[in-house]
Amino acid sequence: MSLTSSSDSQRYGAPLRHAKLWTSNDSLALENGGGLEHVTICYETWGKLNEDGNNAVLICHALSGDSHVVRHDEDDTPGWWEVLVGPGKPINTDQYFVICSNVLGGCRGTTGPNFLNPETRQPYGADFPVITVRDMVEVQRCLVAQLGISRLRAVVGGSLGGLQVLTWAIDHPQMVTSSIVIAASARLSSQGIAFDVVGRNAIRNDPNFAGGQYYDGPAPEGGLALARMLAHITYLSDDSMRAKFDPTRLQPRTVDSAFESTFSVGSYLAHQGDRFVERFDANSYVTLSTAMDLFDLGDNAEKLAASLAPSTCRWLFISFSSDWLYPASASRQLVDTLVAQSKSVSSCEIESLAGHDSFLLEETMEGSGRMIHAFLANDDSPGTSNHFGNESRIAEPTSIFYAQRLDYKMILRLMPRDASVVDLGSGNGELLSILRDQGYAPLLGVERDQSQVVCCVERGLSVLHADLDQGLSAIPDHSFEVALLSQTLQSIVDVAGVLDEVVRIGRRGIVSFPNFAHAPMRETFQREGRLPKEEGLYAYEWHDTPNRRFPSILDFQELCANRGIRILEAIYFDSTTGAEILEDPNLNADVAVVALTRIVS
Amino acid sequence: MSLTSSSDSQRYGAPLRHAKLWTSNDSLALENGGGLEHVTICYETWGKLNEDGNNAVLICHALSGDSHVVRHDEDDTPGWWEVLVGPGKPINTDQYFVICSNVLGGCRGTTGPNFLNPETRQPYGADFPVITVRDMVEVQRCLVAQLGISRLRAVVGGSLGGLQVLTWAIDHPQMVTSSIVIAASARLSSQGIAFDVVGRNAIRNDPNFAGGQYYDGPAPEGGLALARMLAHITYLSDDSMRAKFDPTRLQPRTVDSAFESTFSVGSYLAHQGDRFVERFDANSYVTLSTAMDLFDLGDNAEKLAASLAPSTCRWLFISFSSDWLYPASASRQLVDTLVAQSKSVSSCEIESLAGHDSFLLEETMEGSGRMIHAFLANDDSPGTSNHFGNESRIAEPTSIFYAQRLDYKMILRLMPRDASVVDLGSGNGELLSILRDQGYAPLLGVERDQSQVVCCVERGLSVLHADLDQGLSAIPDHSFEVALLSQTLQSIVDVAGVLDEVVRIGRRGIVSFPNFAHAPMRETFQREGRLPKEEGLYAYEWHDTPNRRFPSILDFQELCANRGIRILEAIYFDSTTGAEILEDPNLNADVAVVALTRIVS
Repeated sequence: MSLTSSSDSQRYGAPLRHAKLWTSNDSLALENGGGLEHVTICYETWGKLNEDGNNAVLICHALSGDSHVVRHDEDDTPGWWEVLVGPGKPINTDQYFVICSNVLGGCRGTTGPNFLNPETRQPYGADFPVITVRDMVEVQRCLVAQLGISRLRAVVGGSLGGLQVLTWAIDHPQMVTSSIVIAASARLSSQGIAFDVVGRNAIRNDPNFAGGQYYDGPAPEGGLALARMLAHITYLSDDSMRAKFDPTRLQPRTVDSAFESTFSVGSYLAHQGDRFVERFDANSYVTLSTAMDLFDLGDNAEKLAASLAPSTCRWLFISFSSDWLYPASASRQLVDTLVAQSKSVSSCEIESLAGHDSFLLEETMEGSGRMIHAFLANDDSPGTSNHFGNESRIAEPTSIFYAQRLDYKMILRLMPRDASVVDLGSGNGELLSILRDQGYAPLLGVERDQSQVVCCVERGLSVLHADLDQGLSAIPDHSFEVALLSQTLQSIVDVAGVLDEVVRIGRRGIVSFPNFAHAPMRETFQREGRLPKEEGLYAYEWHDTPNRRFPSILDFQELCANRGIRILEAIYFDSTTGAEILEDPNLNADVAVVALTRIVS
Repeated sequence: MSLTSSSDSQRYGAPLRHAKLWTSNDSLALENGGGLEHVTICYETWGKLNEDGNNAVLICHALSGDSHVVRHDEDDTPGWWEVLVGPGKPINTDQYFVICSNVLGGCRGTTGPNFLNPETRQPYGADFPVITVRDMVEVQRCLVAQLGISRLRAVVGGSLGGLQVLTWAIDHPQMVTSSIVIAASARLSSQGIAFDVVGRNAIRNDPNFAGGQYYDGPAPEGGLALARMLAHITYLSDDSMRAKFDPTRLQPRTVDSAFESTFSVGSYLAHQGDRFVERFDANSYVTLSTAMDLFDLGDNAEKLAASLAPSTCRWLFISFSSDWLYPASASRQLVDTLVAQSKSVSSCEIESLAGHDSFLLEETMEGSGRMIHAFLANDDSPGTSNHFGNESRIAEPTSIFYAQRLDYKMILRLMPRDASVVDLGSGNGELLSILRDQGYAPLLGVERDQSQVVCCVERGLSVLHADLDQGLSAIPDHSFEVALLSQTLQSIVDVAGVLDEVVRIGRRGIVSFPNFAHAPMRETFQREGRLPKEEGLYAYEWHDTPNRRFPSILDFQELCANRGIRILEAIYFDSTTGAEILEDPNLNADVAVVALTRIVS
């Protein structure tokens, strides 16, 4: 017998009543050398695998999580992702067969440092091998195969779970349709590793640690609690801690703890530390946090590209504005790399004060839940309803053309048939939806407003949450037939820079903009000496207009000429009559739609 | 004998060859109750106290610092602030008599937990009383009095040193001419306290801690090293750690340490931790970090105002953009409170990647050094050269009036005599300097550009480093006779909001702006249908102008009327001829200078 019993392995935390155990007969070769015999996997499932075996969703848990994602019945203890998974939830267990297993190296039923080492007949302790996220995924792959599933509808996870999702998509592209990566990055920052190092040192510095062989005696609870307290700080944000602890700074709650509780934040951390040691094994903490620190898809664009190249799935990346452990900027780096490889990818940076823990919280996962639901529903698998929410959720256009989008018709006239299109400033995806209906593909939106991004995903569109003024350098030269800039020019700071990008990214750029030299505006200005205010198109006051630039058609033409950009075709029209203007458009048209290309010298 | 000998007290770190000891005969009553008898103070001095005893500068050190600010001679060991203090340095020891003492509770010669407790004849250990920053300052006050100094020219310090400066200015206003507060705030954030709590718990969890009575045995070096490693992370920044450790992430330097050194950042922290325990006492660490956490000038504006009200000194606040322990926003809160009390205050937020430690680094203290030098030189004390650098450092004006500032003359015409003035968007302080020369006082600049702020301080002006669009709510109603907004209106996003502030802050607002409805611009626009480009005033392209708004005189007048703002007087002129325009200024003038006030209903 090389395994502890399941009751031994459940020394940590409440029993998982619905968990199942499966032990592999094959030995597991580890990425960093060595191997493990007879790996036991503890897992739970929800819903039913359908006949075609194509509705399975694998959920990957974070460092301190386990297989218990949600309760199985009303009497069950709550799981850690009740907000996202369950009947009628974004990951709908009435529709999907949901699987989650305790990770390799964990302490909740799957083989880990608290299992017996067959060589020594003692628990592994600190002799448990250094494992990687890839090893964790390999164990999951064995389980999935055992369950008779050849392809997963989706793999979903946050934090360490997100690292597993990345690895699944890279190592087993043929097995993954959709990947949802939440609050994760290509590698942890040096700052993040530093916090982990201090936590591990605290564990090892505990006199009870005894080189990791403490299972017969007292556990290194002080050290593990210190590691947890420290990590917990990194899961919150400065703002969320301020809100939680500042009002009662010197009124700590009463905790029965050996740790300092002078300050309210101290009593909270003491409580968190004390509770954690009841459910977690210090050796597992060292093992799993080391695996997180070792995870590395590359420290530069080239290595990152090589790592992600094998993936073939659809991607959705969700990050949180206040997450400083796996920050939005690091998520963006992954997204940019995939975009550069013309992979199918969407991203959204959720505004949240709650830090890294946002991915576990109801209030911050609402928008994410809507996206995840729509993203899963729109995967083009047989039997799914495509373009979820397309009709029901057309938000108000934010464009200055709120009354009618006459420019859409003009844009379509300038579009090559069946072209691939990137829409820079895609809003709620209305124009891209029209293009999709007419057969254009592939399509990508770029939008800076979070709620508009959610709308795009709900329309089943690929969209990047990004600000045009922050650069589009991730998108390679000529990676789309057409790059659209529709009624966005006037809100841009770096007009010339964005125009350069339009004709770099697209073989053809199509730009529509309001002509501020339209006759009525000139006349008002000449006659009255005031910036004109009209209904609709120009209904802004001079002192609060969101417009940043006031282009005329002639100004625009000159700028193009100066930047080596050729105007291929142009349509000028009067948006009040809808008439196309052929004569002196700079005087007579109020809208311009122009097709551009870079002059190759 | 209630004291250890000086050699005992120097168990930690290299001997301070030039340090002097002085022991008080009086007993020290502590802020939180209890007291200490015969406190010994270890201090160093540089330079000479002048005959009038008015050239003394007190430097306050940070948590892990000591009295050794700079070397006394070439053979001496370097000090911790060589960049700022010394002959010819910003705090010039040829000119000033510089004093620094080890803080109360420290371990480098001043009474602390490693001193003998007269009651028990054992070292205090963990029985050393809970002390506060106020107690530290009281000990310094005794020393300063002992040195025959009744008033300090300046008190200067960063981090814990900054907290001491704040306390000096509040508790002993009659003794402080100038206060320079660097990288400090009214209270530490809950996140910052949380890190300290974990550090102290690590010390106390060390088996060698023994309730703090470890002086006869091994010290709790593991716990203290952990606390130091953790704190060290908070002294750096995410960016600085990335730069330092990412290129060699998995190539740690070889360190002889019991701590983990798998990652380069780990080996660095191990080294930092191991070195720290050679020079620092764990009980002192607990004592001093607790004092930092307890420091609290108030958690709301009202309490903060009450705390700062007694101060009468000139203030200079320096913060660093990447400091997340005592962030710039927290420094701003102090500045805002002092501004609201019409105290003399300047502030600058230095752009730096180096985090909290910036205040110790040569590369980030250069700009600060220039400001500190100028700030000290301009304190109006007898015998100092006023308005340091006033002539030599007139930078290029950034205004669109780069050729000539005709508007200054017009502004002066609208100014009540001897008024107090705040200049919103003060640039390099040129206009304020002119006003000062004409007797206007007090004066305050507000400027968002760091290098311009430095110029203002070098001119001897009070200036706040702030962005008008971020709000001016700190400045109370009618706290200045005149609020100036000179050639800044067109770069503001929230024009109406800032105008409201102008007439709230000043009894009279004076606003100068370019008139974009000037005849040549109208004609060009009407004739050519393009935004005009001219030399000088309007020499921008439509697509890259820094101007955000394009006011005309009529538009401006209408906005004032709509917001309940009365135009008291106005001067309109043609900046090319210098002629004042009386007839149809909206057509014939290119510049407007307008005096405004709020209509009281």
